[in-house]
Amino acid sequence: MEHKITMSHGSGGEKYRELVQEIFLPAYCNEYLSPLTDSAILAGEGKIAMTTDSYVVKPLFFPGGNIGNMSVSGTVNDLAVSGALPKYISVGMIIEAGLEIKVLKRIVDSIADTAKKAGVKIVTGDTKVVESKSADGIFINTAGVGVFPSGRKIPSQKIKAGDKIIVSGCIASHGMAVMNARNNLGFLPPIESDAAPLGNLVSAIFKHDDYIVHAMRDPTRGGVAATLCEWVTSGTDIVIYQKSIPIRSDVSAACRLLGLDPLHIANEGVILFSVPENCANDVLSVLRKEEYGKYSAIIGEVREGSGTVSAITDFGSKTRIMMPKGEILPRIC
Amino acid sequence: MEHKITMSHGSGGEKYRELVQEIFLPAYCNEYLSPLTDSAILAGEGKIAMTTDSYVVKPLFFPGGNIGNMSVSGTVNDLAVSGALPKYISVGMIIEAGLEIKVLKRIVDSIADTAKKAGVKIVTGDTKVVESKSADGIFINTAGVGVFPSGRKIPSQKIKAGDKIIVSGCIASHGMAVMNARNNLGFLPPIESDAAPLGNLVSAIFKHDDYIVHAMRDPTRGGVAATLCEWVTSGTDIVIYQKSIPIRSDVSAACRLLGLDPLHIANEGVILFSVPENCANDVLSVLRKEEYGKYSAIIGEVREGSGTVSAITDFGSKTRIMMPKGEILPRIC
Repeated sequence: MEHKITMSHGSGGEKYRELVQEIFLPAYCNEYLSPLTDSAILAGEGKIAMTTDSYVVKPLFFPGGNIGNMSVSGTVNDLAVSGALPKYISVGMIIEAGLEIKVLKRIVDSIADTAKKAGVKIVTGDTKVVESKSADGIFINTAGVGVFPSGRKIPSQKIKAGDKIIVSGCIASHGMAVMNARNNLGFLPPIESDAAPLGNLVSAIFKHDDYIVHAMRDPTRGGVAATLCEWVTSGTDIVIYQKSIPIRSDVSAACRLLGLDPLHIANEGVILFSVPENCANDVLSVLRKEEYGKYSAIIGEVREGSGTVSAITDFGSKTRIMMPKGEILPRIC
Repeated sequence: MEHKITMSHGSGGEKYRELVQEIFLPAYCNEYLSPLTDSAILAGEGKIAMTTDSYVVKPLFFPGGNIGNMSVSGTVNDLAVSGALPKYISVGMIIEAGLEIKVLKRIVDSIADTAKKAGVKIVTGDTKVVESKSADGIFINTAGVGVFPSGRKIPSQKIKAGDKIIVSGCIASHGMAVMNARNNLGFLPPIESDAAPLGNLVSAIFKHDDYIVHAMRDPTRGGVAATLCEWVTSGTDIVIYQKSIPIRSDVSAACRLLGLDPLHIANEGVILFSVPENCANDVLSVLRKEEYGKYSAIIGEVREGSGTVSAITDFGSKTRIMMPKGEILPRIC
């Protein structure tokens, strides 16, 4: 391992995993942390789920979102994909001295609006101010606690051969929206982020007792590729069909122009599901009725195999999909 | 209110309260947040407590502690003073690119050690890396969840006339330790911080079903003065006896030299209690048997009055104690 932290350590890719595996896990080891799912599932009186995320996105505001709504929806989504009903959120802010109060107010209002939309309450908070140039505007940490309604089947988060892979919306929008805004790339009309709280989307599926979900995940840093590479096991392969993947035409065009693979780009309003084939179409039709699930699609399947993820391209060829490496797009969330 | 954030907004004093009252509370308003106690007490299946704190202390290491052990003990203490048994902690890190991995490792080990000592598990985490000069070394946010063992009486956090005020240890050590280390003030041997997890101290009192605690609080930013000023109500006065306040001689000397009031200086290993007179001595003797309670003392009392906090000085005169204003010691926690 290197001697110094680099931007790659924050990328959600290989270096990030190295940091977690070599530094954090050996020190903190316990049975709740080691599954390394987005939320820890805790034994209380009745199980609860707990998660946390820090938000350092730059710029603070971008088409379709801002650091405030992201900091709520990201944490809500981590709870939702664990199978929990998001309930409570904490908000910790680290503010650079000199931030305009009206900017803070816009962020706070966006946090409040998003919490309302997501059905969660902001129950505790903390604010620190550091000197000018000791931070970059504002950093926000949120932690979330969720509960498990009785009878809800908690997904094992283990895919199985025969599963279909479903994505709940158009991919890569968030990453490209932030990139376009930050670097003045000039794509017009501006690309909009998909940042949204997805608790309702997940709850819609859980309303049907007979639907089975083997795994769900929100593919943020590292994109769809990172989630699929984490899901695949030594006894399975994942194959996705490039032409089935929903992507907005402006996002697709921007990726092509910049030579970026949309599968590597962060999402903030999309969930990946791995569900048995016999209920894939039912899950799909439930998702499509939801506000944030209109563009849901079956994009691939799980086969017996040896741990590879690959895509059948638009031209019919097959390419291997690898865990993203290095610093793809820093400060995207 | 001003147009820009200043360091005073992070001080824990008047400006901080203005920010909370004018910006955060109106936007987030709900019944769990509005008591503004250190931990929110949540209705789950069985009540749970939730709290969060961000740590931006500078320097990262100082005699008696570092940002790692603080980030656990501070959050554990916020849970403990709510009456909860601290159970689960999240750790969110924002790291400046270029931080030495060995420095990170020392911090992580200190987090792990402190969690072990405090009896809490680190169950979820998140790490972001920002460019060099976009943060200052490392910022850590922890959130904590605690449970209420059955039969435990949750303090009302309301003081009553007739109460005695107890402090569980020597005051002002943390603030002066960090100040000495940061500014190379040269007090030798170096002043040591009191940073410590105090869950056991609180549990020791709860073992006695018949002891009543009206209020408990860890007086961090803003010091003992800020907590007493928050506690006092329109129908009570708090009077403290300066000569009864435990303070280490090196800390006292440093405060005198620098013209600082130790009542305004942050603590990280001390709890203030307001307890009925008839069990004050019992609580005191229980505290004094604990590792972090050896120097506990009754330092004052609550009287019927009109909302003032005052001190009887060593010379017998009475001085008013006000809510600390402005930027006393930035980046102390």
